[in-house]
Amino acid sequence: MFSNVTRIEIQFGDCDPAGIVYYPNYFRFCDNATAALLSAALGMNKRGWLAHFGIAGIPMVDTGARFLKPSRFGDIVEINSRIAELGRSSFSVEHSLSNNGEAAVEVREKRVWVARDADGNLRSAPLPDDVRKALAG
Amino acid sequence: MFSNVTRIEIQFGDCDPAGIVYYPNYFRFCDNATAALLSAALGMNKRGWLAHFGIAGIPMVDTGARFLKPSRFGDIVEINSRIAELGRSSFSVEHSLSNNGEAAVEVREKRVWVARDADGNLRSAPLPDDVRKALAG
Amino acid sequence: MFSNVTRIEIQFGDCDPAGIVYYPNYFRFCDNATAALLSAALGMNKRGWLAHFGIAGIPMVDTGARFLKPSRFGDIVEINSRIAELGRSSFSVEHSLSNNGEAAVEVREKRVWVARDADGNLRSAPLPDDVRKALAG
Amino acid sequence: MFSNVTRIEIQFGDCDPAGIVYYPNYFRFCDNATAALLSAALGMNKRGWLAHFGIAGIPMVDTGARFLKPSRFGDIVEINSRIAELGRSSFSVEHSLSNNGEAAVEVREKRVWVARDADGNLRSAPLPDDVRKALAG
Repeated sequence: MFSNVTRIEIQFGDCDPAGIVYYPNYFRFCDNATAALLSAALGMNKRGWLAHFGIAGIPMVDTGARFLKPSRFGDIVEINSRIAELGRSSFSVEHSLSNNGEAAVEVREKRVWVARDADGNLRSAPLPDDVRKALAG
Repeated sequence: MFSNVTRIEIQFGDCDPAGIVYYPNYFRFCDNATAALLSAALGMNKRGWLAHFGIAGIPMVDTGARFLKPSRFGDIVEINSRIAELGRSSFSVEHSLSNNGEAAVEVREKRVWVARDADGNLRSAPLPDDVRKALAG
Repeated sequence: MFSNVTRIEIQFGDCDPAGIVYYPNYFRFCDNATAALLSAALGMNKRGWLAHFGIAGIPMVDTGARFLKPSRFGDIVEINSRIAELGRSSFSVEHSLSNNGEAAVEVREKRVWVARDADGNLRSAPLPDDVRKALAG
Repeated sequence: MFSNVTRIEIQFGDCDPAGIVYYPNYFRFCDNATAALLSAALGMNKRGWLAHFGIAGIPMVDTGARFLKPSRFGDIVEINSRIAELGRSSFSVEHSLSNNGEAAVEVREKRVWVARDADGNLRSAPLPDDVRKALAG
């Protein structure tokens, strides 16, 4: 399955009064990492693949995270992202975040490939073959 | 000119490692306060007035803030918002934030009334007469 | 077990280019709802109970969410929060978010009661008896 | 005066339902750019210089932004940051954000060098000589 690595530097404003990353921000980091994973697999950025495949987005249907070790501003966090499962119109991603070589956060996501129907409503659509092939790596 | 008062409770996650509100969040609070100001003036919520007047939004062209006194989580901040100026296709808003009766932040905004043209591009449009009347209070 | 209900109005800035709530924001909403749940149980706000019990926070160790129905700005989302489990130094919370009477998001959290040791490091600590009693409802 | 250039890729979640950057995020980008500016000048990251100089932070006292051209997700925004003024215990920063060679946002900031006094309160302190020298470039 396709995988990709990104790195972020934790910023002061990502952290809360306890001095550690405010946990909702990890979901933002992982949303960005999933965008980077698909962009690397498909050879164009997210605006590119939304337009190319005519979809509204890849909304989350289920996500979860285990927080193993807090990170602080100034830390460099490495995010290893990989496709974990490919369904008909959904796919799963796993992100392993590490900080200085130590496991920090484990995140899993299930997302749906979503188009807009004629009435403008969001509806799941089957993964196109070339997307499936690219994500399978 | 029309005015409106809103109140927010500062949350833990609104604050940074210094234990005070992370200042970019004040712009989010004031964006919400401007939405509430227009909603009170126009008698419908923001989704309502965007649809009713067929506009894409009221994007910011210029904003500034003076920070007089830090606020902490648990504090109740009162936001006094008022229309300060009405132009042809723009308007200005002033927000005075106070915490426990003391001036905390002063924010000014200049925004544009913006529609989408046939090509989907954002373009300023004249303030409709009934909007102008409602904002004039 | 103790439970509490809060309501939020979804704001324009909580939403993404697909026009629906950007999902990391749900974790912020639920972090606030957990703070409100404990505040209602303990009879003081979060700054109050952090100081009263001398703790650094209640960091998340595990959280997950199922997204059943998207919400848009202007929607009023009701959050039903309840203590689901009480451990020695941890506790679990469940949040059911509904929009106009329909289930929208289900969130579960496991958090730890955390103090700072003499070196300033974060360490779990047993739930005080009066906290345990209050959360048991 | 000292200057520094950083680049960010605008993310899907940085944008609002109009499809453009939600403007409060520009203040987050610029807060990060100011941290990078001082880090480049002082040769250590923000956690490093907060600890090295024993300060609580560099809180904002006044900031403003002019928005000239919207940016969308996928855009690469270049931030040119420079020290504009050095006071006794305050300093000003200017950020010019450009997108594909075109001016996008102009931001100015006035910040204070802040320590904690014996009671834990935040108090401005004079800029240390080596900080002043480094920021003067």
